[in-house]
Amino acid sequence: MKLAMVDDKLVPMEDLDPVYCDRGTYFGDGVYEVLRSYNGKLFALDEHLARFAASMAAIRIRGIELGTIRERVLQAFEAAGLANAKIYFHVTRGSAPRNHTWAKDITPNFFLTISEVPDSSAEKARGISVCTHPDLRWKRCDIKSLNLLPNVLARQDAADRGCDEAILVDDQGLITEGAGSAFFAIIGDALCTAPLGANILPSITRHFIVKAATNVGMAIKQQCLTPEQAANADELFIAVTTKDVVPVVKFDGTPIGRGIPGPRVKALMTEFLKFTV
Amino acid sequence: MKLAMVDDKLVPMEDLDPVYCDRGTYFGDGVYEVLRSYNGKLFALDEHLARFAASMAAIRIRGIELGTIRERVLQAFEAAGLANAKIYFHVTRGSAPRNHTWAKDITPNFFLTISEVPDSSAEKARGISVCTHPDLRWKRCDIKSLNLLPNVLARQDAADRGCDEAILVDDQGLITEGAGSAFFAIIGDALCTAPLGANILPSITRHFIVKAATNVGMAIKQQCLTPEQAANADELFIAVTTKDVVPVVKFDGTPIGRGIPGPRVKALMTEFLKFTV
Repeated sequence: MKLAMVDDKLVPMEDLDPVYCDRGTYFGDGVYEVLRSYNGKLFALDEHLARFAASMAAIRIRGIELGTIRERVLQAFEAAGLANAKIYFHVTRGSAPRNHTWAKDITPNFFLTISEVPDSSAEKARGISVCTHPDLRWKRCDIKSLNLLPNVLARQDAADRGCDEAILVDDQGLITEGAGSAFFAIIGDALCTAPLGANILPSITRHFIVKAATNVGMAIKQQCLTPEQAANADELFIAVTTKDVVPVVKFDGTPIGRGIPGPRVKALMTEFLKFTV
Repeated sequence: MKLAMVDDKLVPMEDLDPVYCDRGTYFGDGVYEVLRSYNGKLFALDEHLARFAASMAAIRIRGIELGTIRERVLQAFEAAGLANAKIYFHVTRGSAPRNHTWAKDITPNFFLTISEVPDSSAEKARGISVCTHPDLRWKRCDIKSLNLLPNVLARQDAADRGCDEAILVDDQGLITEGAGSAFFAIIGDALCTAPLGANILPSITRHFIVKAATNVGMAIKQQCLTPEQAANADELFIAVTTKDVVPVVKFDGTPIGRGIPGPRVKALMTEFLKFTV
């Protein structure tokens, strides 16, 4: 007899809710996005959908139209009635008895949550502390997949050390990005960030920050930094969808600049917000 | 208003089944085991529980006793009444609104399935074909975690190429293991397999195969092989809990030995079964 057990309850397999057999849980076999609205207006929906399509294609999820996903995002956004909404959604390959290979006709599962963007104004005004952590992730971090255990462990380790974000350092001793953010240094008049590649998520916030930096006359240097270079930068910040630009004022215990958000990062925060109106 | 959406249905967040907010799905934040019984007797339960405890400790999941897990496995095994049962179980960190960091008092989720072991006798008699695939996994493959997307993609790629398993090759050009199996070569009188490390799952079947090989007088060489060395081995096989020893008769298109299961792998299959009675 085929059985399942959910916590301490035995269930005949045929009565089990298929959600328990989601390949998202068995394998992390899915991809996700997080986007937000500013004052009632969704920001960069097209860009998020395009990246999502690329993630789905990279792991070969088919059977759900991008137009359907767009409609659902818009429907949820309208129904929630939140001016500053945080929208998370994922698509997994589907539910099936556990097997690494998948059936061609498997139906993907869609899931979304929408809630108010948490207020980060105090954090942004004060700046955050970060610490480095080995980058233990897989070799396709350009895919926004549900395989996020190394990110979770790094972020929790940072939190345990009193930091707000973990900055990941690869085997070559170079910074790739944050556990859940893109990472930037301002050195002289240049904005430095890691070049896009298989080891980096193509951050949409990063894309707009590069535009903002260009608008305020900064040079863009796509290069990976060592932790030492970062600790000696004039200014540092991370970028994350829900908070856009967040100044970093301490890096592995070293105060950055005067230990408060610097003038260039503030200029970028202001410039970035122009894209959101 | 906080909302969720499951496929095309909007649900107020407070009415959402917590299973949808399982960190196992959001992050692959959980660990698992697969074990089996032979003719009514569970095989290597203690070893599987010990490895599971190590996996839980490695990702810092607390709040569920190993004794509880043992009881549930035994309860499900008894209730199912299957002589040759395949038991899968996982523990995730728990269900919570999505956030990389976790609350100290989060309650882990336990999930188990039990079903008949699929018959693999024909496959074992005939031998299987395998092909190589880049090892794209994270740097802690010794943890049996739910972050299995690279394994899934490699296995599917192998299947699409008419093969039964993907053999993973690291950046140094060395074989680590299979997408869902341990990998072994027999070269002369020696059994060769990759040494255990952070890049290898400490396979329980491997442990017993090494014992079986010693019993039949083979030398054990813990060394990583190149695909060329594997293709030129006298015999090859993979090891997986549900099928134990499975001969490999084709490697990247090259027939191994005479293209049929060889004498030493057959001896190991026989010797292995002695542990299961």
